[in-house]
This record gives sequence, C-alpha cells and structure tokens, in this order.
Amino acid sequence: MTQASPPTEPTRTRITRLREKERTDRAELDALLDSARVGHFAIADAERGPVVLPSAIARDGDRVLTHGSTGSRWLRALAGGAPTSLAVTTVHGLVVARSAFESSMHYRSAVLFGTCTRLTGDEAAVALDVITDALIPGRVGELRRPTRRELEATLVLALPIDEWSLKVSDGWPDDVEDDLPGPAWAGVVPLHETVGEPRPAPDLRAGIDVPASVHGLRNRPQAPDAPGAP
Amino acid sequence: MTQASPPTEPTRTRITRLREKERTDRAELDALLDSARVGHFAIADAERGPVVLPSAIARDGDRVLTHGSTGSRWLRALAGGAPTSLAVTTVHGLVVARSAFESSMHYRSAVLFGTCTRLTGDEAAVALDVITDALIPGRVGELRRPTRRELEATLVLALPIDEWSLKVSDGWPDDVEDDLPGPAWAGVVPLHETVGEPRPAPDLRAGIDVPASVHGLRNRPQAPDAPGAP
Repeated sequence: MTQASPPTEPTRTRITRLREKERTDRAELDALLDSARVGHFAIADAERGPVVLPSAIARDGDRVLTHGSTGSRWLRALAGGAPTSLAVTTVHGLVVARSAFESSMHYRSAVLFGTCTRLTGDEAAVALDVITDALIPGRVGELRRPTRRELEATLVLALPIDEWSLKVSDGWPDDVEDDLPGPAWAGVVPLHETVGEPRPAPDLRAGIDVPASVHGLRNRPQAPDAPGAP
Repeated sequence: MTQASPPTEPTRTRITRLREKERTDRAELDALLDSARVGHFAIADAERGPVVLPSAIARDGDRVLTHGSTGSRWLRALAGGAPTSLAVTTVHGLVVARSAFESSMHYRSAVLFGTCTRLTGDEAAVALDVITDALIPGRVGELRRPTRRELEATLVLALPIDEWSLKVSDGWPDDVEDDLPGPAWAGVVPLHETVGEPRPAPDLRAGIDVPASVHGLRNRPQAPDAPGAP
C-alpha cells in the first residue's frame, strides 16, 4: 500500500472518514478481491466527464484482471493508459441501530488507483483462464480452448495492486449512550448469497450432467456474516 | 432518457456493446434502483484523477438520494456541483456456456449521469427518512426523530434521473452452432440474496423483540432469477 508522503498531505488512498474501519492488511484486500465477481471502474473522459462501469474482475497475484470486447470504448480507453479508479464492494448485512443516524451496513470496500496494462498473446489467453476459473473454479478444464477469433475479439486488462485503501464494517451498532435505555431494537441482519439449483439450457443435449465446476459453486467462500458469528 | 442528438454523435448514454441487452423502459430502471442498496459514484478530481466510491442509495421519484458525513471530501465535491456518473449493478446468476467466450452473468446495470443537488432543512430530513425506509421498510416509524446535531452532520444529495442507460442480461447461453454437439454442459446458475436470522446486539435490553421492519426484510422483492423461472 502506498504510504502517505509527506503525512500532512492527504493522498487519494488516505481514509479520512470512519478511519476506525480502515484495514491495511493486504491479505484482507485479497480476500475481498477473491470473493467479489464485479468491480466498478471509473475513467474521466475529457468530453463526457466521469464515467463508471461495472466489469467482472479476478485477482491474479498482484494485479486485478478484467476483460471485455475490443469494441468497448471505455475498455479501449483503459487499454490506452487512462488513469482509473476501481471500487470493489461487497455487502454482508444490515446494521440496525437505535437511531437512523447510526444505522448502516456490514460491507467490505476497496478502492484501487492506477493504470491498466493490456495483455496480449499467450499472456492474455492465460489471464482469460484465470478470469473464467475465478468465476467458476475448474471450468477451464471442462471447456474447449478459446479460438484465435475469440481471443482477437477480447481485450484483457491488468491493473496493478499498488495504490489502494480498504474499509471493513463488521461491528455491532454503535449507539449513543442516551439511546440505550430506549425502546428500539438493535442488532445485525446478515445477508448471504445463496447459489440456486443449476438450470440446464433448453438446447442442452440429453445425457450431459451438471459438471463438477458448477456443483462446486455451492462451496464458494463468503465473508463472515456478523460479529460473534460462530 | 435523454435521446441521442444528433444520432450520428455518440452520447454517453448510447449503448454501443451488446445492444440487444439495452432497455429503455423507465419502470425497469426504477425496479433496479429500488432493489439495489448500493451504487458507485465517480467523480473526476483535477489533481487526483477519477475516483469511484460506493454509497447507499434510495430512489425517490425522479431522483436518486444518497447521504454521508459532511466531513467526506468526495460528498462535498458532489455537493459542490462536480459532474458525476452513478452505476447501479446487481448480479442474479452465472451464465454457464459451452465456451469461456460466451460465459457471462445475469445482471442489471444502470449508469446515470448528472450533477447532484444538496438537500437542506426539512427536505433533507424527509430524504433521510426515505433512505432509511428504503433499506429497512418501516424502520422510520420505529425510531426517534434525528437530532439537529445529527442532521447538521449529514450531507444529503439528490441526483436527477434524467440521463441514463440500462442493460439487462437475463437470457440462456448463446453458444455458437459448432459448440452445441460438444460435451460441455450449458445453463444458468441462479444467485439469490438470503436474509439471515437477526442477531440482537450484545447490549440490547431484555424484553425488546425483533421489530416488524426487521421481520419484513425477508419479503424484499428480488429480481427474477433465471429465464423460464416460474
């Protein structure tokens, strides 16, 4: 994580609000990036102003991968070196406090800054495998290889994990003393993701079973759901 | 929705990729904004470049509300009239195709553009109630009113729903003809949000039951989870 230097000058990764929620452990950042499927990339267009767009992400060591069509204007802008900011956010619960003011959510929120590099050739093909297996672990081994035409139509980008900040909210409501004797309930309501029953495509050939990769989706690790959870 | 004018000049709400997923029905936009708890706002800072940050959102008629601390630098920038882009994205499933190239997700993705207005006085107080009740319907009626000090510490913003685009992916895998006779499974794996058992705060007074608002969270409407769903 880039350090503030000099410390009196705020940098873009310095957390100024709710600093008690700041985390500086890279392993916690990685856990968030590994658990999230989608991130939001911002770019600043000279004519159109700021634009933010969602994209599937996957962490690959010290970088975040994303991909899309070579026809995408904003991906081409990122590939061309436009500075970007990437936010990755997951929500795990509602913090129900005794006042609206103290009510909030359980979340993990990372913001990264930097410039993407376009990957090409074998490096792009390997990165696409990483993205596919991040979304559905083991899926690459069940599929044919991408064709040259598919690879040529795909823009693959890598953002280095270098300049970042992380905020984690996972505590109990923090009500003011005056509200504690009042009549309002307080607590946390966990929110989970549930993986439903796989639905075969209408044109699926008879005799093809749900593969191991899809069965395995039910084992995807999720963030701990609430304080005091077992 | 702002129309492209003239049509030969791409505007920032013109969808250029996967146009078959474009939706122009305002009711569909509203359904997404009403189902999402968090949006991502981008601003372009002259010194720091693009920044994207998550924030709780709530739709209020023809505008999207958000709020935060008056100490937040990026919220103050929005309040000061910085142009912004807001992305609201929800994911409902994994599209498991017979190739990595055609594999994707079920999602709803809106991008709005505009400038926020800061709400003050009674208008801000009413807007905060809307945000509280959007996250936990009925909660406002169970809580004391915000104090003047709380209101003064809160910045409330409204972004008009004026310039926007919406993309919805909710179909079956669209594999190429050559892949249909192959051995790969294809289908959709639905992803749902599940509301867990409410956990009372450790300092909750005895005899205070889980309130109606919290019980009601289990009835929050979700997007349809897959094509062909009943």
